Amino acid sequence: MKDIQITQETRMANAIRALAMDAVEAAKSGHPGMPMGMADVATVLFNRFISIDPAAPKWADRDRFVLSAGHGSMLIYAINHLLGYADMGMDQIRSFRQLGSRTAGHPEYGHADGIEVTTGPLGQGIATAVGMALAERMKNARYGDDIVDHFTYVIAGDGCLMEGISHEAIDMAGHLGLGRMIVLWDDNKITIDGSTDLSTATDQMARFAAAGWHVLACDGHTATGIADAIEAARQDPRPSLIACRTVIGFGAPNKQGGHDVHGAPLGAEEIAAARKALDWPHAPFEIPSDLYAAWGRVAERGAAARAAWEDRLAAHPARAEFLAAEAGDTRALPRAMAAYKAKLIADKPKVATRKASEMALEVVNGAVPSTVGGSADLTGSNLTRSKAMKSVQANDFSGNYIHYGIREHGMAAAMNGLALHGGFKPYGGTFLAFADYARPSIRLAALMGVPVTYVMTHDSIGLGEDGPTHQPVEHLASLRAIPNLRVFRPADAVETAEAWEVAMAATDGPVMLVLSRQNLPVVRDSADENQTARGAYLLREPEKRDVTLIATGSEVEIALAAADLLAAEGIKAAVVSAPCFEAFATQPRAYVERILGTAPRIGVEAALRMGWDLFLGPADGFVGMTGFGASAPAPQLYEHFNITPQAIVDEAKSLI
Amino acid sequence: MKDIQITQETRMANAIRALAMDAVEAAKSGHPGMPMGMADVATVLFNRFISIDPAAPKWADRDRFVLSAGHGSMLIYAINHLLGYADMGMDQIRSFRQLGSRTAGHPEYGHADGIEVTTGPLGQGIATAVGMALAERMKNARYGDDIVDHFTYVIAGDGCLMEGISHEAIDMAGHLGLGRMIVLWDDNKITIDGSTDLSTATDQMARFAAAGWHVLACDGHTATGIADAIEAARQDPRPSLIACRTVIGFGAPNKQGGHDVHGAPLGAEEIAAARKALDWPHAPFEIPSDLYAAWGRVAERGAAARAAWEDRLAAHPARAEFLAAEAGDTRALPRAMAAYKAKLIADKPKVATRKASEMALEVVNGAVPSTVGGSADLTGSNLTRSKAMKSVQANDFSGNYIHYGIREHGMAAAMNGLALHGGFKPYGGTFLAFADYARPSIRLAALMGVPVTYVMTHDSIGLGEDGPTHQPVEHLASLRAIPNLRVFRPADAVETAEAWEVAMAATDGPVMLVLSRQNLPVVRDSADENQTARGAYLLREPEKRDVTLIATGSEVEIALAAADLLAAEGIKAAVVSAPCFEAFATQPRAYVERILGTAPRIGVEAALRMGWDLFLGPADGFVGMTGFGASAPAPQLYEHFNITPQAIVDEAKSLI
Repeated sequence: MKDIQITQETRMANAIRALAMDAVEAAKSGHPGMPMGMADVATVLFNRFISIDPAAPKWADRDRFVLSAGHGSMLIYAINHLLGYADMGMDQIRSFRQLGSRTAGHPEYGHADGIEVTTGPLGQGIATAVGMALAERMKNARYGDDIVDHFTYVIAGDGCLMEGISHEAIDMAGHLGLGRMIVLWDDNKITIDGSTDLSTATDQMARFAAAGWHVLACDGHTATGIADAIEAARQDPRPSLIACRTVIGFGAPNKQGGHDVHGAPLGAEEIAAARKALDWPHAPFEIPSDLYAAWGRVAERGAAARAAWEDRLAAHPARAEFLAAEAGDTRALPRAMAAYKAKLIADKPKVATRKASEMALEVVNGAVPSTVGGSADLTGSNLTRSKAMKSVQANDFSGNYIHYGIREHGMAAAMNGLALHGGFKPYGGTFLAFADYARPSIRLAALMGVPVTYVMTHDSIGLGEDGPTHQPVEHLASLRAIPNLRVFRPADAVETAEAWEVAMAATDGPVMLVLSRQNLPVVRDSADENQTARGAYLLREPEKRDVTLIATGSEVEIALAAADLLAAEGIKAAVVSAPCFEAFATQPRAYVERILGTAPRIGVEAALRMGWDLFLGPADGFVGMTGFGASAPAPQLYEHFNITPQAIVDEAKSLI
Repeated sequence: MKDIQITQETRMANAIRALAMDAVEAAKSGHPGMPMGMADVATVLFNRFISIDPAAPKWADRDRFVLSAGHGSMLIYAINHLLGYADMGMDQIRSFRQLGSRTAGHPEYGHADGIEVTTGPLGQGIATAVGMALAERMKNARYGDDIVDHFTYVIAGDGCLMEGISHEAIDMAGHLGLGRMIVLWDDNKITIDGSTDLSTATDQMARFAAAGWHVLACDGHTATGIADAIEAARQDPRPSLIACRTVIGFGAPNKQGGHDVHGAPLGAEEIAAARKALDWPHAPFEIPSDLYAAWGRVAERGAAARAAWEDRLAAHPARAEFLAAEAGDTRALPRAMAAYKAKLIADKPKVATRKASEMALEVVNGAVPSTVGGSADLTGSNLTRSKAMKSVQANDFSGNYIHYGIREHGMAAAMNGLALHGGFKPYGGTFLAFADYARPSIRLAALMGVPVTYVMTHDSIGLGEDGPTHQPVEHLASLRAIPNLRVFRPADAVETAEAWEVAMAATDGPVMLVLSRQNLPVVRDSADENQTARGAYLLREPEKRDVTLIATGSEVEIALAAADLLAAEGIKAAVVSAPCFEAFATQPRAYVERILGTAPRIGVEAALRMGWDLFLGPADGFVGMTGFGASAPAPQLYEHFNITPQAIVDEAKSLI
């Protein structure tokens, strides 16, 4: 720090530096450069501004801190240790990057308190923070300053700002005017390959300004400069970017400022030199008690703020409503859904499942006030907006529908942020083919276990004329491959409603609804039990089976037609609807055996066979796609690619 | 057009409008808004500037035209029809979006001449164009202005500029100073959901300027303004953005300017009104001969330019070298590779396959001068740079190594552009987990059949401490799911070299090399035949098999160790190395049966089982992952997740 030689804040920052370099050294791997470079910025941020209570890490109105540059994980581990988080003892710092520790190579949500989001894949943190900052404003609009009034701080590196998702994020934040979002950019001019000059010439401050942000700069090693910048950012009604000019690996005298310090241990010699340079005479993993006390005062300030907030909440007229939303209350849903499904069984509407989803959303959104809908600019196609929904607009956050723009990736990350922030159940739509654009954020939702719902429509060649760029063929397989993501492909309006029930009940991971563009008949006679939740079930069960047809979504209708054709020829076909492979995989063995039977099987899905080994052996049949689609009206495509009742009949005859 | 009531250029543009609205009407689906809105801009661009020869659509020095807003496909179909492309007769316009036509819903590369790239997934066109413009400058640096001197023009919409990939693209283009790239932005203030005000407030001109671009604006319906802007853009040494202020659906008097005109037929009534408004009295699909003649003069100008270019090429000292690169010449490779592989067999180096890839690249890049390497800021980790390579720098294009920055998506798209442009064989690296970021461009490479090579390192839990965010578990399955993408996961240095041979020989689709961080022993005794190219082959074949172990990449070593353990217990295990599932799937049945045998099988891969049904039935075994990874040293993770020789032994005993 240039303005004062060794202030207490400098020593607080050096505690971060020492823990970072010692933990990386002990682990023999990790990234000391960022924690050491940003230690002063982070110290000023926490020491003077951030309001959190380590004793109540989930306090709803805490400031959110997002380490978007997740490789610098030792920064947050060190800070959380110094702040006194109960689960971040020195044993955790010592076991950085070791099996079973809470201190993974990159910060993992759920592994330790005070980690608001899993980061590491670059750009995800800043984009998730947009959702958090949006959630704060939306809750503020509902409940007022008394109980919702906090900031979302992000530390981001050059990588975060080079990734495309950062564009979607900052465009969205600037448009919406998320003034409570403050990004501290570690402007160290270094990437892994070397100087940033190797790969970028963007004027980041001008870029953020173009997106409607308030931008300012500071020396990242000057406490007063850092503090003044943060204070100015807090006052400005726009989201703020603070370019913090830093030296990567600050304190390591021979290595700082170079790219070698980014992602490798400093080595014993350089660590010794750094201890000298930083005037840090303490042994590895040893922190002087006065520094614990200093960091402890940050926690005390937060605890006091939380206590005052608890009092305000207790007196707040909307207390019950607030807590219900925080708890993800869906108690009103079952009854409303039961009535809706009974009506479906009575009316048997032949609608596209995207339309069925819209119908279900009228019920869901009516019963669950914490839902937040949206679409990546395909509202009229995804049918994600129920009638009573109101658009969230720039500087008007009273609505509950987000126009995410043509930003699938930013949408998925913001949905993560909305859910992680708490108080909201986000869902968002695009075409299934464009799940690819959002995939890194979908993966993080699954890894974190965040309950968000994707509404992915136009789910096969059934979308017709838009052609192969828009026709998913490998997407079902690739999405079913993501652990902890449940993919539902409902066959009709009843299954769609049931899938929405599962999505609303989910607490530990994302749910994806994969929906048709084309109309589909109701195939169910009863909705008394949520069959969809079991993953697969029998729609038609002859006394003795010659063949079992297993289909999903829009192909269930085709399988049923095939069963009729087969019946006319005296061949008895069972028909299984299989809306969710992941759910079926968790069913008891007896159930699985009853559903699948012992007859030869044919899978039917307008997609590739990959993933169907859950149902099919090598001797079984499959009617589906083998490559990319084509541009033509949908009925012609089904004929062209031979996904027809007759094709199933032919396959059945060849098998039995 | 405002400056002149009905000039010939206006009528040329109206021909586009008429064909667009009539074709969409006939197809009963499609997007008339963009072609009608951008018809004037496109007409001025082609009429006054673009140099192409429809009779020689692959002429190397043609200007490239990229319709990034691919939903406006009728714009390019109409233009190519009017220009006289032989394969774009009126029958094609009439059969827009019909089965078997060349006029797919979105422009598909390879379906018709004059379509430089498949577009439709938004942002891909502009990002691919960066690669094309880069290729042009790199070839210009090699061969000079005489034979390489053209522009890359892009028409992009709001969607293209909102997608994150656009940030990666424009940052890269601005940094490199790709002055021959000119983006014509259809600034119509409309997206599908409605006004752009719903979702964005970005000042695009300021944003592009921040990325180092030359920016200017024009009225998109005023010919002189359009022409002046394009001329200024051509003169400026920076890449240029021209904001073309347009009215979406221009000419449809009651619908223009609104979002309903974006993606639906106008209807008979509105089309009649448009005919009147545009003073276009001609029948549907009827173009007056003077307009064919006018458009034909554009083609004639291009033909003359090409003829002059052919003369210059004939006299060019580097003619043979130029043509060899254009043809993708790899003739020097087999001999060099044979020597290198013989040395590998002799030396048996125990290296990570990423290191083996670097070693192979010394040979590949030495023998194939048209390779262009690069990495998304992980050069030292991906090991993508051979010693003699030289970095491409801003305004110095004599190198052959690209620092793509932290931009996996932009890299993959630029690689598509380099390959599509011709004359280069691009490869680029990142971590396998971040293939997700690049996935939409990888899919397009596969859909287009573009030969590019992805170098994806750190391919499993074997990367160790970086933890689950960086550890691919579902990626192999999700990438193998992409049709026409060949995924190679080599087991040692020999297989890595063989995979590079396949990659260099590829002409019809992308190849992905999936490489280990950790060291692996050479498992091959001979490199006389490229066994890797067969997809799977026997490494160890006992006379009679009790079990067949099938493994890929780093798990082949483990399978071999398991076979040793089993042999010690008298159990005979065959070991199959299966570096490429897609290649194995195309082998003759007799070969497949010989490799797989009839004994029980066990798949071994540090990834999810999905996709293994190519080799395994329900009764077979699998030793691999069942969910996300963890952060710890790699050897501990293999133990923790039970991917060990002993686990294979246990599985084998339970099966036989």
